[in-house]
Amino acid sequence: MYRLFILAKCDLGHAETVGEAVAELDEVSEVYSVTGDHDLLIKVTFEDLQSISDFVQDKLHRVAHLRETQTMMSFRVYGSDIGDFVN
Amino acid sequence: MYRLFILAKCDLGHAETVGEAVAELDEVSEVYSVTGDHDLLIKVTFEDLQSISDFVQDKLHRVAHLRETQTMMSFRVYGSDIGDFVN
Amino acid sequence: MYRLFILAKCDLGHAETVGEAVAELDEVSEVYSVTGDHDLLIKVTFEDLQSISDFVQDKLHRVAHLRETQTMMSFRVYGSDIGDFVN
Amino acid sequence: MYRLFILAKCDLGHAETVGEAVAELDEVSEVYSVTGDHDLLIKVTFEDLQSISDFVQDKLHRVAHLRETQTMMSFRVYGSDIGDFVN
Amino acid sequence: MYRLFILAKCDLGHAETVGEAVAELDEVSEVYSVTGDHDLLIKVTFEDLQSISDFVQDKLHRVAHLRETQTMMSFRVYGSDIGDFVN
Amino acid sequence: MYRLFILAKCDLGHAETVGEAVAELDEVSEVYSVTGDHDLLIKVTFEDLQSISDFVQDKLHRVAHLRETQTMMSFRVYGSDIGDFVN
Amino acid sequence: MYRLFILAKCDLGHAETVGEAVAELDEVSEVYSVTGDHDLLIKVTFEDLQSISDFVQDKLHRVAHLRETQTMMSFRVYGSDIGDFVN
Amino acid sequence: MYRLFILAKCDLGHAETVGEAVAELDEVSEVYSVTGDHDLLIKVTFEDLQSISDFVQDKLHRVAHLRETQTMMSFRVYGSDIGDFVN
Amino acid sequence: MYRLFILAKCDLGHAETVGEAVAELDEVSEVYSVTGDHDLLIKVTFEDLQSISDFVQDKLHRVAHLRETQTMMSFRVYGSDIGDFVN
Amino acid sequence: MYRLFILAKCDLGHAETVGEAVAELDEVSEVYSVTGDHDLLIKVTFEDLQSISDFVQDKLHRVAHLRETQTMMSFRVYGSDIGDFVN
Repeated sequence: MYRLFILAKCDLGHAETVGEAVAELDEVSEVYSVTGDHDLLIKVTFEDLQSISDFVQDKLHRVAHLRETQTMMSFRVYGSDIGDFVN
Repeated sequence: MYRLFILAKCDLGHAETVGEAVAELDEVSEVYSVTGDHDLLIKVTFEDLQSISDFVQDKLHRVAHLRETQTMMSFRVYGSDIGDFVN
Repeated sequence: MYRLFILAKCDLGHAETVGEAVAELDEVSEVYSVTGDHDLLIKVTFEDLQSISDFVQDKLHRVAHLRETQTMMSFRVYGSDIGDFVN
Repeated sequence: MYRLFILAKCDLGHAETVGEAVAELDEVSEVYSVTGDHDLLIKVTFEDLQSISDFVQDKLHRVAHLRETQTMMSFRVYGSDIGDFVN
Repeated sequence: MYRLFILAKCDLGHAETVGEAVAELDEVSEVYSVTGDHDLLIKVTFEDLQSISDFVQDKLHRVAHLRETQTMMSFRVYGSDIGDFVN
Repeated sequence: MYRLFILAKCDLGHAETVGEAVAELDEVSEVYSVTGDHDLLIKVTFEDLQSISDFVQDKLHRVAHLRETQTMMSFRVYGSDIGDFVN
Repeated sequence: MYRLFILAKCDLGHAETVGEAVAELDEVSEVYSVTGDHDLLIKVTFEDLQSISDFVQDKLHRVAHLRETQTMMSFRVYGSDIGDFVN
Repeated sequence: MYRLFILAKCDLGHAETVGEAVAELDEVSEVYSVTGDHDLLIKVTFEDLQSISDFVQDKLHRVAHLRETQTMMSFRVYGSDIGDFVN
Repeated sequence: MYRLFILAKCDLGHAETVGEAVAELDEVSEVYSVTGDHDLLIKVTFEDLQSISDFVQDKLHRVAHLRETQTMMSFRVYGSDIGDFVN
Repeated sequence: MYRLFILAKCDLGHAETVGEAVAELDEVSEVYSVTGDHDLLIKVTFEDLQSISDFVQDKLHRVAHLRETQTMMSFRVYGSDIGDFVN
């Protein structure tokens, strides 16, 4: 399983509708409003690497009023109780 | 429940030991190695606001070889299947 | 009680009207024009965490001529004479 | 009355002792631990401009384990219920 | 007397007209074209703190083709031959 | 196959020895000296995701005189003649 | 042979079409979607220096929906199995 | 003689026409396309300081498709074989 | 006459002694403590360009506890009442 | 012929000795003290690409008191009177 984290900025006044639209995408497991420079922190899980490209470019980047994203791929999980982080 | 996200940099060559040490702290629920400028993305959950201060300053910032942190507090969860995000 | 601090930039020539509009919002306790890169420093207090999301996205980000915000959540107050900073 | 706001970073593991030391300085009215890149947001009030220099350079910058500060001077208060912001 | 310094960027090709317009404002004592990222360095003097707000927001920020400003308040003058820097 | 790109800075005067040491690591397929802010651009290929963590933290970050790294994971290859970019 | 690396940002929702258009340019040998702040990492090879200018300004910068580029020229290859990196 | 160096960004796809237009200005002695974040590095020589202002604001900043400039004034030349760098 | 402006950072707790030492240098006409990221704004005037190099490198940069400087050369004065800004 | 431009920072108080040492290196054709964030702008010319690597890593980066460099490779010269910029 792949985990991708995305910090996103939205057009002012639209973070709520972006957050709700993103939360409905199949691959998305968690969406948070966060303090700081960004509006949202999004966690996405994938079964294969190619799906990441499809998700980011075909789905996420087409959500209206999304303005900017910064992506981080997780390549290791620490601790023992989370489970199946293998590919 | 409060959720705090922390992006952390470690001294070169020590991200693994920092990641393992952080994952053993009680309040920490998830720790990931991530691509980009930072080494770790950490998710912490708290029952009350005062505990955040104790955790960040008394526990997290005293882990050896941690170099720099940037914290983000979540103040809203999107989607319906996660549950009890109230305080 | 929750305290959120917001550094805001406004469209040039509109900081005064933004400052006055923000000061009239119920949750806002203090608004200052400040030197530096930002125009305004805003202090907001909340009784519960969910209200922060409603305030930032439904009220603050809809004030006309606001251009950019950076939010900071306080999670500890130092000193003894301020009082009831509990959640 | 003059109001100066200071965003401060501390050496890792020392934000608590810095926060407590700063809160005891006479001119300081409020000290908060905050999320983001900085550790503390400090509010200071002065009766005259010269005192700011004495405070920043002789008192604040000599607190042990303070690492970096960014200062903002307030030159206007919005809203009516705060009072005597004149010099 | 208060001294405020302002680093300003202008729309390309308009720094000269902005510089001349700013130099004619009553509160402005010096305006320079400077090398680097900014176009102009402006020095302004005030008799009281409230006038700074009126100047920055009502006068300076309404000069056509001004694009961005960064303000610095002086709170101490070094050396003895300048004189009356009191408020 | 996974592809990871790494932009690296080295201690002044040591980019050559770092470049040579990195080029000898098994997972590394290409190492270039590049113009700009960074000294080296490194391309690494992996068979599984867990190996990335082992490589970055146990091998790369322990090369002497490496100072700072920024990692980018590739999640899609464009064009048809490169081949087997699947996991 | 000259090697130029290009980090590129695209208009939101257009990284895929940009990536495909860039991959079809003759000089381009590799194009990757990457995590982080940029969308694409592009590798281009040239037989002479003048061709770089023609490529960057006449071909690459005219691809629709490309927004920003950062170029890095390689001036040394480390390791022995890559071959003919001479000019 | 005064020497001014200018790093310039151009609108995408227009660096070539900007470079050619700038190279024809009388004061300009050298114009290069460069790798990195900027498109052009421009060297300009002047006989007197006032001409710099006229050049930057009346000529350079009015070249179509120039987007942003950063200027550096040289105030010393090292080495002996260049000659008459006096004012 | 040449005018050079310098924004300076000092080691924490030493801005006052740096400010006083700088104010005693012959070429320095004004030194201010300023709000923001920097500690001091320094104005220096010169009769010839070569003196700038001697001042910055032989005098200013050797003041103890100065940590970092950013220099801006003025190449035009706006307004009529300042006088002899010619070279 | 290859042209490389280098923006360099030096340890405080050492820009003069660094400038003189760099000016004596064979490949270096011009060295300037410049205003702004950097201390020196260096122009270097090479007959072949491999020499750039030897120069930057074996000679330039070993000059004492050099602290940081940013390199830009020129890949096109504009204007007709400069001559033989071919490789």
